[in-house]
Amino acid sequence: MTQSEKRATQPGVEDVALIVGGGPGVSASCARRFAENGMRVGIAARNPEKPVLLTLEKTHSVRRYACDASEPTAVDQLFQNVVRDLGAPTLVVHNIDGRVLEIFRKGIIEADPIIAFDTLRNSAFSAFLVGQQAARLMRENKPNANGAKGTIIFTNASAALKGFPSSGAFAMACHAKSGLAQSMARELMPQGIHVANVPIDAAIGWTQEDGTRAHGRAGTTVDDNMADPDRIAETYLQLHRQHRSTWAFEIVLRPWVERW
Amino acid sequence: MTQSEKRATQPGVEDVALIVGGGPGVSASCARRFAENGMRVGIAARNPEKPVLLTLEKTHSVRRYACDASEPTAVDQLFQNVVRDLGAPTLVVHNIDGRVLEIFRKGIIEADPIIAFDTLRNSAFSAFLVGQQAARLMRENKPNANGAKGTIIFTNASAALKGFPSSGAFAMACHAKSGLAQSMARELMPQGIHVANVPIDAAIGWTQEDGTRAHGRAGTTVDDNMADPDRIAETYLQLHRQHRSTWAFEIVLRPWVERW
Amino acid sequence: MTQSEKRATQPGVEDVALIVGGGPGVSASCARRFAENGMRVGIAARNPEKPVLLTLEKTHSVRRYACDASEPTAVDQLFQNVVRDLGAPTLVVHNIDGRVLEIFRKGIIEADPIIAFDTLRNSAFSAFLVGQQAARLMRENKPNANGAKGTIIFTNASAALKGFPSSGAFAMACHAKSGLAQSMARELMPQGIHVANVPIDAAIGWTQEDGTRAHGRAGTTVDDNMADPDRIAETYLQLHRQHRSTWAFEIVLRPWVERW
Amino acid sequence: MTQSEKRATQPGVEDVALIVGGGPGVSASCARRFAENGMRVGIAARNPEKPVLLTLEKTHSVRRYACDASEPTAVDQLFQNVVRDLGAPTLVVHNIDGRVLEIFRKGIIEADPIIAFDTLRNSAFSAFLVGQQAARLMRENKPNANGAKGTIIFTNASAALKGFPSSGAFAMACHAKSGLAQSMARELMPQGIHVANVPIDAAIGWTQEDGTRAHGRAGTTVDDNMADPDRIAETYLQLHRQHRSTWAFEIVLRPWVERW
Repeated sequence: MTQSEKRATQPGVEDVALIVGGGPGVSASCARRFAENGMRVGIAARNPEKPVLLTLEKTHSVRRYACDASEPTAVDQLFQNVVRDLGAPTLVVHNIDGRVLEIFRKGIIEADPIIAFDTLRNSAFSAFLVGQQAARLMRENKPNANGAKGTIIFTNASAALKGFPSSGAFAMACHAKSGLAQSMARELMPQGIHVANVPIDAAIGWTQEDGTRAHGRAGTTVDDNMADPDRIAETYLQLHRQHRSTWAFEIVLRPWVERW
Repeated sequence: MTQSEKRATQPGVEDVALIVGGGPGVSASCARRFAENGMRVGIAARNPEKPVLLTLEKTHSVRRYACDASEPTAVDQLFQNVVRDLGAPTLVVHNIDGRVLEIFRKGIIEADPIIAFDTLRNSAFSAFLVGQQAARLMRENKPNANGAKGTIIFTNASAALKGFPSSGAFAMACHAKSGLAQSMARELMPQGIHVANVPIDAAIGWTQEDGTRAHGRAGTTVDDNMADPDRIAETYLQLHRQHRSTWAFEIVLRPWVERW
Repeated sequence: MTQSEKRATQPGVEDVALIVGGGPGVSASCARRFAENGMRVGIAARNPEKPVLLTLEKTHSVRRYACDASEPTAVDQLFQNVVRDLGAPTLVVHNIDGRVLEIFRKGIIEADPIIAFDTLRNSAFSAFLVGQQAARLMRENKPNANGAKGTIIFTNASAALKGFPSSGAFAMACHAKSGLAQSMARELMPQGIHVANVPIDAAIGWTQEDGTRAHGRAGTTVDDNMADPDRIAETYLQLHRQHRSTWAFEIVLRPWVERW
Repeated sequence: MTQSEKRATQPGVEDVALIVGGGPGVSASCARRFAENGMRVGIAARNPEKPVLLTLEKTHSVRRYACDASEPTAVDQLFQNVVRDLGAPTLVVHNIDGRVLEIFRKGIIEADPIIAFDTLRNSAFSAFLVGQQAARLMRENKPNANGAKGTIIFTNASAALKGFPSSGAFAMACHAKSGLAQSMARELMPQGIHVANVPIDAAIGWTQEDGTRAHGRAGTTVDDNMADPDRIAETYLQLHRQHRSTWAFEIVLRPWVERW
């Protein structure tokens, strides 16, 4: 009997979490945190063989899925597989920002239209596909003790709040994701599905395998002037556990010293 | 040895909460919740003899203070008294909306200027006074394990997000409170003081002495289409416990069925 | 027969503009611009003997009124006098920001509560009083060719859009003015009264008597990196002339080089 | 000598306007209005043989272009053709909302992903392409008397301000367009290019060939509870003529009776 099978038969363990987008930051923190709180957890990534995902499989029985989340059929298949393996999801996190180094900080004139288009597809359109499948399945869930059939969380960026200069494509994608999240919240919350948009107004740091702290930019040491992904995961868990009498739609998280 | 004295000598109990504005809804829920989590709690109200406050004193050792929070000297004195009785506050909640029935839903032409002025003073100006004294004291606190010297929370209303017709005075007051909160957040968060603005986009219901649920409007029975003040208090506690690497400034809470 | 009498009898000249708050910047530009477009113009100021107002009286037949706009009876009297002298206003501009040097850029702890309170009263509460009287009179106007019974414009500042650090009182006042304007717009626009909020996101410069350009800060030479009050007046005139099929509520004006 | 040739040689006529998206509403009103103010005007549409465009060619010498504005090479070619025929544009209006009837008012679960994707591409991505080419050319223009090298206006919808239920794809597209416009404004305004976002919070009505008024929904008679596209064109002209000392970025236009 595998650990996963034991879990599935354990009474009272009902939550199934799916995290779409798999990296060592927010996704890994969420996977760990959700698993430690008794959820069955899946992570979908283009490349499910990333070391961090292999580790999560070992340490937290996280199920790995290969998925290009910007492909309708692939996302459809992903959710079918998750239902088969883990059950219908009650918590889905879309954690893809689609930012591409080749276009970031490029002026509007210099930005490559093809990369701009891919940014929009990888971030906003994949959010649409993931949100759609999550809503389709959650609608059939029974409400839990908080009156919720499920929670859909979109990780977003400060570019969702403000279109910064020389990042038009990323501003489009993040704004689009906010617009989608708002529309879905207004539609689905009265149906018992909690939808949340969480712009992280900061660079994100995380703890590396060797115990040092790192973030996306090359090799910089981090302290608490960056957003700690474990704390972000904590907020996601709180959102998932909110009673439907007081749901938050949007929470912007930023470090104390961030200028805004 | 009273329960309060036992608390005061208990090692590790460091949090002192002050709630300004005292009613049976959010204030009472906060007082209970904070006390149950080991905080020493004070509540200030114009009339500290309200039954709900007397009950809180008995059941949760909540200290009661008489204070007109729109009077500078009274607020100054309040904070002196709290420091003397409970210690320097680490969590201050401003929970006065100043809404006056005589002016609510009155058109701009019919609204009495004197009442409009009082609304502004009782809500926004009292928030300024309370925020100022809280900041003054918290600045001297040592950071806790989350890097925070203290948390200041402003309870607000949907009128902070949108100026509804026929409620100009209330829209002024709520918007003013938001503007103050934002300014204080940008100034104080880099100094280690967490400032949050929490518009409740809903009517608020609560459990009455007789076990039935009620809300501000006459006698209506409530269910979860109203904001549950116990859940609001839960969010406040979560805000207070956020690590400074990921502070939320604004959280709008609304019931699942609320239109927005 | 005075110039004013000639004007009053001139057919087709129907517009009566009242500008509350009288200085050499936006108010003077509005007065000139409105008069040059055939309006009868009044300006109210605490001190109606300011040189700029005396000049406007001579050059543009602008009527001067003494008024403390934060006093209900004074504002009531002002509008009575304007009706008597010029006719019922069709365009009212509230142009008082109430910013006080003693409190500006003061941290929340250092800010004097009395001055904070005065800021709120002089700016937001006077806006309420002026807006109320304007609405009361305009409601009785006949719609003009654009379907409008009148236009009420609130000059505002960038602090209405963002609460900057160390300016809590000003943030309160500007946000309050926005909240009021929004509430009035939602209430009055369906009654044919156009309400607009115009945050100027910039320092304002103007042409001095000697032909040089100046702005509020001591003696600095300005060029077009500051907002030109003549251009602001132009936007106000355009707002006043919008057809009610396409009314703008809020227009933020900022110079091309402003950071936001 | 054609009328267009006469125009081209007329001294002082410098403005070249390009409208991308060609229908009988805002685009036609803009074309007429801009031409009547002395501009050389081009309109690009997927189908440039629409009756309204043929009429505009005859009555206002408007140049017609076939262009799928969601194709990078097509947009590149369009701008080359406009430069060749009319000169470098000084005013570019992106007037495509990409709304598709098959998806509008469809719930998130029912919406066809392919149509959602097309909405995003036709609206937001085409805005990127058009904005990019406009910026590239305008950067080389000489500043006019108002200090502007050119104006780029994005027509937008209320879905840019609020994600309505059951219109996730349209909310994505409109929010994306706002994010792009904001980013471009922050980048290009300091370079002398005015960028504006104009959400029309209303249905749009227009005058049909037979003199009756119509709007997008089948056959309904309109009066001034709909946005008049001639008035929208008026606002665009005002935006184009603003001095760079006081540029507006966003103007929401809504009819007086619209609820918001």
